[in-house]
Amino acid sequence: MIRDLILKNRSYRRFYQDAIIDRSTLTELVDLARLSPSARNAQPLKYFLSSDSATNALIFPHLSWAGYLTDWDGPEEGERPSAYIIVLNDNTIASNYFCDEGIASQSILLGAVEKGLGGCIVASVKRNELQQALNLPTQYAIVHVIALGKPKEEVVLETIHGNDVKYWRDRDQKHHVPKRSLNEIIVL
Amino acid sequence: MIRDLILKNRSYRRFYQDAIIDRSTLTELVDLARLSPSARNAQPLKYFLSSDSATNALIFPHLSWAGYLTDWDGPEEGERPSAYIIVLNDNTIASNYFCDEGIASQSILLGAVEKGLGGCIVASVKRNELQQALNLPTQYAIVHVIALGKPKEEVVLETIHGNDVKYWRDRDQKHHVPKRSLNEIIVL
Repeated sequence: MIRDLILKNRSYRRFYQDAIIDRSTLTELVDLARLSPSARNAQPLKYFLSSDSATNALIFPHLSWAGYLTDWDGPEEGERPSAYIIVLNDNTIASNYFCDEGIASQSILLGAVEKGLGGCIVASVKRNELQQALNLPTQYAIVHVIALGKPKEEVVLETIHGNDVKYWRDRDQKHHVPKRSLNEIIVL
Repeated sequence: MIRDLILKNRSYRRFYQDAIIDRSTLTELVDLARLSPSARNAQPLKYFLSSDSATNALIFPHLSWAGYLTDWDGPEEGERPSAYIIVLNDNTIASNYFCDEGIASQSILLGAVEKGLGGCIVASVKRNELQQALNLPTQYAIVHVIALGKPKEEVVLETIHGNDVKYWRDRDQKHHVPKRSLNEIIVL
């Protein structure tokens, strides 16, 4: 059931860093994005894959994690992602990718969950620095980064109170995420 | 397998219009969107559901279909969507929904496919006219419209030649969609 996959697909930010993800797994995930809808069928998105510790170490310093956890600087060594898929826009194809990046990233994440993995879309990225660190040609614009790994944290959904959308972590490092109700999001 | 669902999830534009989709089905699909990731967990997206023929008839005239099929004005009476989910941004929550609409719409469409339905994200929408036709308060901005129904057409994927991304329909009304190869979209 797709609902089970969607429920399991929480935004995970701590991982068993030594659980290696091989490149062929990343390729299979990108293939899910490839087969997903694209506005005007333009398919301008491209993908940079990283599954080795050296490249991972080039990427990690340019990401910011979990804006609401102000006393947490992101996962420590040992709990960092073991792979990344960097979503790029190929400017030579189109300047506007509409909502392709959301569609593609959801396909990738659902595929990852099915494989017992998990991840997080990181949109707070020092794009210029990352572009330089990876020697990415200017033809490619970094859209966002999907961090992937074997999740090392539990994430639970909570009822929202008012408009307080801030997630929090409890003493046991369990991550709580308030979600709006169906009633609230269905206008008519 | 998520890959099977993603493969079946083609953009369908002709439907068995009299195959009714009840409101509870649409609600279940929106619940999949609700449980999907949202940037900064802001969850600004809301949903307008239509599954009755009167409301459907208010929506249809404001949509444009299949830009590359220049000799086709969209589905004829009898082949039109039997339901719609209109994705809205609630401006009182946030002005920027990042890639939430792509994530949410992919969840909705994969859920639809699992139920034997199918659909198409329609982004070419006369937004002002649709907003007026539905008496939608200005608090809500129309992001795009997801047309849903029981598909009445076959869609096949094709190898792309060069950069020719235009889909086409053959004499048997089969719809062909060229897709870039994995090799082309993986930069490194």
